[in-house]
Amino acid sequence: MRYDIAIIGSGPAGVSAAITAKIRNKSIILLGNKNLSDKLMKAHMIENYPGLPHITGEDFGKALQAHLDNLGIEITEKKVSAIYTFDDYFSIQAGTDFIEATSVIYAGGVVQGKSLPGEEQFMGRGVSYCATCDGTLYRGKTVAVIGASDDAAEEALYLSEIVDKVLYFPLNGSHPEADNITVYDEKPKEIKGGMKADTLVTDKGEHSADCIFVLRDAIAPGSLIPGVATEGAHITVNLQMETNLPGLFAAGDITGLPYQFAKAVGQGNVATLSAVKYLATKPKA
Amino acid sequence: MRYDIAIIGSGPAGVSAAITAKIRNKSIILLGNKNLSDKLMKAHMIENYPGLPHITGEDFGKALQAHLDNLGIEITEKKVSAIYTFDDYFSIQAGTDFIEATSVIYAGGVVQGKSLPGEEQFMGRGVSYCATCDGTLYRGKTVAVIGASDDAAEEALYLSEIVDKVLYFPLNGSHPEADNITVYDEKPKEIKGGMKADTLVTDKGEHSADCIFVLRDAIAPGSLIPGVATEGAHITVNLQMETNLPGLFAAGDITGLPYQFAKAVGQGNVATLSAVKYLATKPKA
Repeated sequence: MRYDIAIIGSGPAGVSAAITAKIRNKSIILLGNKNLSDKLMKAHMIENYPGLPHITGEDFGKALQAHLDNLGIEITEKKVSAIYTFDDYFSIQAGTDFIEATSVIYAGGVVQGKSLPGEEQFMGRGVSYCATCDGTLYRGKTVAVIGASDDAAEEALYLSEIVDKVLYFPLNGSHPEADNITVYDEKPKEIKGGMKADTLVTDKGEHSADCIFVLRDAIAPGSLIPGVATEGAHITVNLQMETNLPGLFAAGDITGLPYQFAKAVGQGNVATLSAVKYLATKPKA
Repeated sequence: MRYDIAIIGSGPAGVSAAITAKIRNKSIILLGNKNLSDKLMKAHMIENYPGLPHITGEDFGKALQAHLDNLGIEITEKKVSAIYTFDDYFSIQAGTDFIEATSVIYAGGVVQGKSLPGEEQFMGRGVSYCATCDGTLYRGKTVAVIGASDDAAEEALYLSEIVDKVLYFPLNGSHPEADNITVYDEKPKEIKGGMKADTLVTDKGEHSADCIFVLRDAIAPGSLIPGVATEGAHITVNLQMETNLPGLFAAGDITGLPYQFAKAVGQGNVATLSAVKYLATKPKA
C-alpha cells in the first residue's frame, strides 16, 4: 500500500490538509495524536479564528475532530522518527513500521529549543530518536537517554530491559526507576565522537555511551528529513508550501512565524492542493 | 485621522485581517461590501473550512459577520479606485474621499478577465475607474463607459446628467436608458490615444471620447496601485504577505492560486501580523 499523501501532524495544519485531501479523493494517512495537538488543547482562548469567535482550544479541537469524523478521516497514532526520500516516493519510519507515500505534507509543528551540537551530524550513527526502533541494536551495551518528551521515561524503562546500563538525563522533571538506570542532574551540551557518537558532554562532565537517545516530542526537521532545506528550526517553503524536495510540502508552525491557527489551516489547505498538482504529474501508485 | 491599517476587501481574507488587527489593538478601517463578498455568498457548499464542516457560503458569511459584530468591527461600504504610496503612508481614493493609513492590506479579490490594451497606460489620463470621482471633469463632453460592474448602468446614468454624450458598451447584459446615452453592442478591444486616451477601439470600429470609464467590480492591481509588482492578475507576495511596496500587504485570491477560503483566512491573518511588525518600525501617526 502506497498512499497518495501522508500527512504528518494532527494540529490545525495537518487536519486542514487532511480535510482537503479527502475531498479531493486522495488516499491519505494522517499521522498524529488522538488529542490532535497539545498546543491546541492547551490554548486558553482563541479570538481570531474567523467564524468561530471566542473559542477555547479544547472546543476548537472538538470542532476539528467533528470535521474529521464528518469526512471519515481517522488519525493513526504513531511517532515519526525519519522521512526518507526515494526517486518516486517517500518512506516514513514510524516506530518499527515503514509507511510509503507518493507525497508528504509535514505539519508536525516546530521544535522548541535547538538541536545539540553534534546531534544532526551523528544522527543514525550513535544518535537515535526512537528507542522502539533502535533499542535492540544496543543489547548489553551502555546508552545515554536525553529525556525531553512526555513518554521519555517510559521509553528509557523499555531500553533498560534490553541494554546493560542506561544513563538518564531528565529535561522535563520526571524520570524512570530501575536498577540499571542512573539519573544525572546534568544539562546535555554536546554530542561528540569519531566515526560514531560515543560521548555525551554535559555542563558537569563527559559520559561514554554506545548510543545517545534524544527523546523529544518533536525532532528538528533537518534530522527528521535528510536533505530538506531549513532556516533555523523551520523548513523553507514557498507560497505554494513546496520545500526543496519535490513531493514534500510543509505547513503550519514548522514553516516559520507567525505561529497562528488560522495561518496553519490556510497553509495546510494550500499544501494539499500543491500535493494534488504534484500527484497529477506522477503515475498512479 | 490616519488609520494604522486600512484593509481593502471584506471577503474571508479581509475579514480575517480585520479580526486579528482589532485584537492587536490597531486602528483600522475595513473597506468592502455589507454582504462581505459576492463570491462567498454564492458559494453553494463549503466542505473544507476546518471547524465548520459542510456549510453554505451564506452561513459561512453569517459566521464571519457574527465574528465581526462580536469584536465591534464595521464595514465601510466604499469602492476603492486607487491606492497611492507616499513616504510614510498611503492615500486611498474611495469615491470622492481620500483615506489615509500607515499600512494597507489589499484583499480585494482577483479580477476575472484582463485589462484592455492601453488601459493601464492611460489610467488617470483619459481612463477612469470611478464615475463619482471624475465625472465632473467631463462636463459638456463625450465619454465612453465600459459597463462590467453591477452598478455600471447606474453610474452611467449619473454621468449622463453631467456630460454631453455617453457611449455605453454593456458587458454584463443590463444597460441604462437616457436621451443622451447610446448603447453599442460592440466588444471593447483597446484604448488608444496620444498624451491622453481619446479612442475606444471595438470589434466593430473606433469611437472618439474625452474619457473612457472602465467600470468593473474590481480593478486590476497594477492600475489600482501604481508601482505594485504583479504577475498577471495577481500581486506578488512573499510568505509574510509583503509586496514590493513597504507597508503594503496582500492576502487572498489576489495573491494567486489556489482560490480557497481557508487560504484566504490564513493569509489575512499573516498579513495583519506583518503589518503590526511594520507599524512597530514607524512613529505613531
